[in-house]
Amino acid sequence: MTTIYDLDTPSALLDRQILTANIRRAQEVCRRLGVVWRPHLKTHKSLDVARLQTASPEGPATVSTLKEAEYFAGAGITDLIYAVGIVPSKLPRIHALNRRGADVKVILDSVEAAEAVSRWCRENGAALRVLIEIDCDGHRSGLRPDDPAVSDVARAIRDGAELVGVLTHAGGSYALASEADRIRAAQNEVKAVVSVADKLRGEGYGIRIVSIGSTPTLMACQDASGVTEIRSGVGSVGDLFMAGLGACRIGDISLSVLVQVIGRQTEKGWLITDGGWMAMSRDRGTARQAVDWGYGAVCDEAGRLMPDYWVSDANQEHGIISRRDGAPIDPKEFPLGRRLRILPNHACPTGAAFDRYHAVENGTEVIGVYPRINHWEA
Amino acid sequence: MTTIYDLDTPSALLDRQILTANIRRAQEVCRRLGVVWRPHLKTHKSLDVARLQTASPEGPATVSTLKEAEYFAGAGITDLIYAVGIVPSKLPRIHALNRRGADVKVILDSVEAAEAVSRWCRENGAALRVLIEIDCDGHRSGLRPDDPAVSDVARAIRDGAELVGVLTHAGGSYALASEADRIRAAQNEVKAVVSVADKLRGEGYGIRIVSIGSTPTLMACQDASGVTEIRSGVGSVGDLFMAGLGACRIGDISLSVLVQVIGRQTEKGWLITDGGWMAMSRDRGTARQAVDWGYGAVCDEAGRLMPDYWVSDANQEHGIISRRDGAPIDPKEFPLGRRLRILPNHACPTGAAFDRYHAVENGTEVIGVYPRINHWEA
Repeated sequence: MTTIYDLDTPSALLDRQILTANIRRAQEVCRRLGVVWRPHLKTHKSLDVARLQTASPEGPATVSTLKEAEYFAGAGITDLIYAVGIVPSKLPRIHALNRRGADVKVILDSVEAAEAVSRWCRENGAALRVLIEIDCDGHRSGLRPDDPAVSDVARAIRDGAELVGVLTHAGGSYALASEADRIRAAQNEVKAVVSVADKLRGEGYGIRIVSIGSTPTLMACQDASGVTEIRSGVGSVGDLFMAGLGACRIGDISLSVLVQVIGRQTEKGWLITDGGWMAMSRDRGTARQAVDWGYGAVCDEAGRLMPDYWVSDANQEHGIISRRDGAPIDPKEFPLGRRLRILPNHACPTGAAFDRYHAVENGTEVIGVYPRINHWEA
Repeated sequence: MTTIYDLDTPSALLDRQILTANIRRAQEVCRRLGVVWRPHLKTHKSLDVARLQTASPEGPATVSTLKEAEYFAGAGITDLIYAVGIVPSKLPRIHALNRRGADVKVILDSVEAAEAVSRWCRENGAALRVLIEIDCDGHRSGLRPDDPAVSDVARAIRDGAELVGVLTHAGGSYALASEADRIRAAQNEVKAVVSVADKLRGEGYGIRIVSIGSTPTLMACQDASGVTEIRSGVGSVGDLFMAGLGACRIGDISLSVLVQVIGRQTEKGWLITDGGWMAMSRDRGTARQAVDWGYGAVCDEAGRLMPDYWVSDANQEHGIISRRDGAPIDPKEFPLGRRLRILPNHACPTGAAFDRYHAVENGTEVIGVYPRINHWEA
């Protein structure tokens, strides 16, 4: 049997039991709400994980890059939304997938984009399903639900391009530390996108997809009437930032980075590990939360949290672990070569530091390797 | 001729003219100081760039991971220092390289590590060159120069392991914003390691390598008497953090991320691009400098700085560009699809977001693809 002691460090571990429990929880929320779950695959970018999430071989699923679209569609997960505003230069890769049987849908939020996409479809004899992106909370992209330009954009989607839905993302929910606020954010997310769907249907458009999604609002959504699907990503993997918000518990974090003690600075109370920020990522998202985890939370070999410790600093290939109370570290407890597991602040960039996950169960058993992709270019 | 308009976005551009000028500058500093330059390859992890840096086909060079050691040694750059404290579990991969003709040297800073490495060499019939790591400024790893344990560590390096040198890294210089402070840091770095080398020679050890290195102290070093080599990494590529320190100019930054305008929020004065933090990295190192560049500095297609703009925020696959003065953005100046180039806060994590660089010259001409590696596992 392979165990974590057989692995090189740093490497990425994915606790399959925690992962499947998280996935089941999201599926149950969606079943209770009567909507389809369209998991966002951007967090893990792994076919093995996607297979645990998707309802059928075709999906549905959400992607954040064309490379993800190509990777997952190539493996048969063809019902995809590319959930980043489209520009014409990205259409050849999408069209190539759709000609091979995929159904990669795109989003846009301006007449300029709608006209450019329609023109591209006309000139290339392409059919393409399009959703209008709605901005429910001022977070990023999209049209405000009451913006009269929504109708102008809908009208500008023509020729091979077909308007099939509306989509929003309550990105503002990442800043909400109370459940009451997240419940309100989920209500607002639903209302924003359903109101636009109703209006567009009144104008004669066949709006089949009404899509919302963020991990915090998924877990706080109480009524999704009028919504057809929810997208969520990071919650299946879990991280310290989501735990800090209250959207999951620390025990729900399935991803950890296996590191090794490579040195100590005894006078300073430092352990030095080979898990630096290149492995953990530069994400310091918990710095502004109630509990700052530095570059990550420290667990023992079997994944049990050691709450007295934190990754207090990091360089490219060095992590520094110290006690929160500043007390000395017992060198006998942490000999050179001891393996530890570090929970990430943010699962998306930490996962992206690796080209594979080692799936673990029962603490230290390695049950398989889950490759993942990274980058953008074909 | 290929130009940047033929590239997908986001992608990484490396301006070859700037890069070679930076490399020449480091080489000239080392020549003036009478030392060998052992460039640290961890910033770019690209064989094409390493070939521009190294004095001979064999190197010398510095690496931060075993995967870098394997990649570069496999291409003939065999004179390497793996500049992260060694533990025995990493020795099989190093020994495999050295048996095939490489000379990968390791560093350590404790009797515990020296004994473990010596034992491993004895048990495996391995020869291994070892340097003692010195802590010149309290930054991270290493023994203080006056620590009597230096002699104990030297004595514990035996059997197949051979003590050949001492090494330090003035990591504290990254916090020094004045040139006078950096000049002092460089003097201190030299003094720390030369004093240990002299002491160990007095104890009968053949200290052949006396190694210092950091980009800020390289540029500030005025006298390296007693030092045999300088390692530096990020300075060859350049980034906003080094420019903020004064260790280079903004015009010396050879790496940029090519992005595309994919949307606007006109009322907020936002351009939305496809260069989010997954492309730029989560590094916010300039946040505590005199000029905060957000997630990066904005340049036009040809690489000319647009100083009125900055990447004021970012999500995973979305960058938000706004004017520093909060004024509106002219949509005619930034149509959908316009390409921009973003200079990184920190070249090491931004480079690691990509699997290749597109080498450019004369603004927008693409003259080649430089693959790079990432991750740790074989």
